[in-house]
Amino acid sequence: MISDAHRQAWAALALRALPTPALAALLRAFGEPQAIIAATRAQWSAVVPDAIVAQLSAPVAADALARTNEWLAQPGHELVAWDDPLYPKALLELPYPPPVLYFVGRAELLNTAAIAIVGSRSATAQGKDNARAFARALSEVGLTVVSGLALGIDGAAHEGALEGPGSTLAVVGTGLDRVYPARHRALAHAIAERGALVSEFPPGTPPREWNFPRRNRLLSGLSRGVLVVEAALRSGSLITARYAGEQGREVFAIPGSIHSPLSKGCHKLIREGAKLVETAQDILEELGLAPARASAEEASTRESPVLEALGDDPADVDTLMARTGLPADAVAVALLELELAGTVAPLPGGRWQRRHA
Amino acid sequence: MISDAHRQAWAALALRALPTPALAALLRAFGEPQAIIAATRAQWSAVVPDAIVAQLSAPVAADALARTNEWLAQPGHELVAWDDPLYPKALLELPYPPPVLYFVGRAELLNTAAIAIVGSRSATAQGKDNARAFARALSEVGLTVVSGLALGIDGAAHEGALEGPGSTLAVVGTGLDRVYPARHRALAHAIAERGALVSEFPPGTPPREWNFPRRNRLLSGLSRGVLVVEAALRSGSLITARYAGEQGREVFAIPGSIHSPLSKGCHKLIREGAKLVETAQDILEELGLAPARASAEEASTRESPVLEALGDDPADVDTLMARTGLPADAVAVALLELELAGTVAPLPGGRWQRRHA
Repeated sequence: MISDAHRQAWAALALRALPTPALAALLRAFGEPQAIIAATRAQWSAVVPDAIVAQLSAPVAADALARTNEWLAQPGHELVAWDDPLYPKALLELPYPPPVLYFVGRAELLNTAAIAIVGSRSATAQGKDNARAFARALSEVGLTVVSGLALGIDGAAHEGALEGPGSTLAVVGTGLDRVYPARHRALAHAIAERGALVSEFPPGTPPREWNFPRRNRLLSGLSRGVLVVEAALRSGSLITARYAGEQGREVFAIPGSIHSPLSKGCHKLIREGAKLVETAQDILEELGLAPARASAEEASTRESPVLEALGDDPADVDTLMARTGLPADAVAVALLELELAGTVAPLPGGRWQRRHA
Repeated sequence: MISDAHRQAWAALALRALPTPALAALLRAFGEPQAIIAATRAQWSAVVPDAIVAQLSAPVAADALARTNEWLAQPGHELVAWDDPLYPKALLELPYPPPVLYFVGRAELLNTAAIAIVGSRSATAQGKDNARAFARALSEVGLTVVSGLALGIDGAAHEGALEGPGSTLAVVGTGLDRVYPARHRALAHAIAERGALVSEFPPGTPPREWNFPRRNRLLSGLSRGVLVVEAALRSGSLITARYAGEQGREVFAIPGSIHSPLSKGCHKLIREGAKLVETAQDILEELGLAPARASAEEASTRESPVLEALGDDPADVDTLMARTGLPADAVAVALLELELAGTVAPLPGGRWQRRHA
């Protein structure tokens, strides 16, 4: 782990909320955060424009800094910054990675194969069951499930992940000393023990509506893909999906009834190119984390005695019955499957012909 | 209408089930079906290969021909062939258009803007309600709903279409003297009176399992697009959708619960590129038959005072509150919508910036 002075310098610097390119330039010029803070106005001016120099010169809110250092002093409370090997590599790919992440729990979860599962706070019972089942299935194969600790889908996803051998990462939109919502206090404790809680906001940050969409870019950024389980047409989940798309992450969505308002967001995403998924296996296959199953169609084509009996010349059902010894029903079913697979086509007069791709 | 002799010659020729290219060549050479039938073996041989000459020389089943002519002699029983202006132009685009179609009802429905609605025979109650509602909505704007007279989705689609000012076309897989299934006798009568029933199979053809998939290519061929309402993974509806794709018709599918076996076929189609639809309006827009609605996102972007207040420089929520006079909640909601629309993005330090495409 890094030194306390280094950590506190990062915390102080992060409180100034500098634009990412300016902070990156300062870090390149001065090497480490303590050196940035210790530099003179003239030294800053050589690296960044005046507006940034003014931001660096202004007094930092003393109570915010004190509160952050107090929080960091407690056991299990951690901070990772850009220059820390524990900082999530996935976030460094993004245009605006937060300079620091506060976290509690298992640091190794910041750099694991992860899938985000998000959705409505006012989810249906079936939606929560789906979130829990998908999360458990992904956890079963050792993946980390990322979500936002909200009521509804998020909570169910965290719970499902904790039921498997994989784990879960809660990315929250408040300071880590402010568990929100209060009803998820016990869940947050379980995640802190067996997973991890992460925030880019300093301790003491209360729930503010406008911080949650901002947080969403980290949900997707930390993940290989984002699964939207249930979402209204205008919702934070669609923002997360948009970020996922922009970040080159896969977007998955679970379809539902056209009469359910909480499926409309998912349907919108599918129309716009998100992958429709019915099972966790669909996600694993899409991400190359599981071998694709041989389709039933391929299987039926490979083994079909009717296809063998048909050969390459047209034949009618009577002929195929005679050649295979199968009854009419069985021949008809086999032809249906072969036609579904695009392997045979009907001709006039009730005859069938093999098709070659 | 064409002469009885011409019509009977077509019926006789159709019973021979010649390959399409051979029949087309004969028609080009001899001009009309009576001339083909009256020609000598030597004349046939000059146009088509020996196997076809053999098919033309073989005795036609006398009872089948008699039954067809008997059926055609009854009022309202019609036949259209390739050379008939009433023959559906949409079918002439296909690789194997049936030489003749038997029909009962309104001939003009063979050449109208049509949408096929198909799905499972063992549909759910909700699936049938959906089929009926979509069909009625399409009929409301004057479209013809094409379906296959089967139990379940097909029947509900015909019924829904008959509730509107548009009409419905039943494409069946039996002879038109054999209503199948028997439970749809009353429905078939209603369709014969106010819509049309069509078959490529001669009168007397019983329900044969292998004729139904063959019939499906006409459902899609007669339509601008095919809507699959509910379908199992292996089903005739997926065959119809496959034909639609091959014929350059649009494929639409209604999503549903991932736990419903009858949604799995629809989900498979959507994964393979079918358009997910929630309303009949979605279909009309996709086919260019209705103006696309301005999206809610566009509307919110156009009218947003928060966007105007933001301008092109970053600003935080407090600033936006001051500029607009709106409370924090309203600003946050506006920012959420703008972020969903991709019009604004959050910056470090709680600031927001306008994005330009």
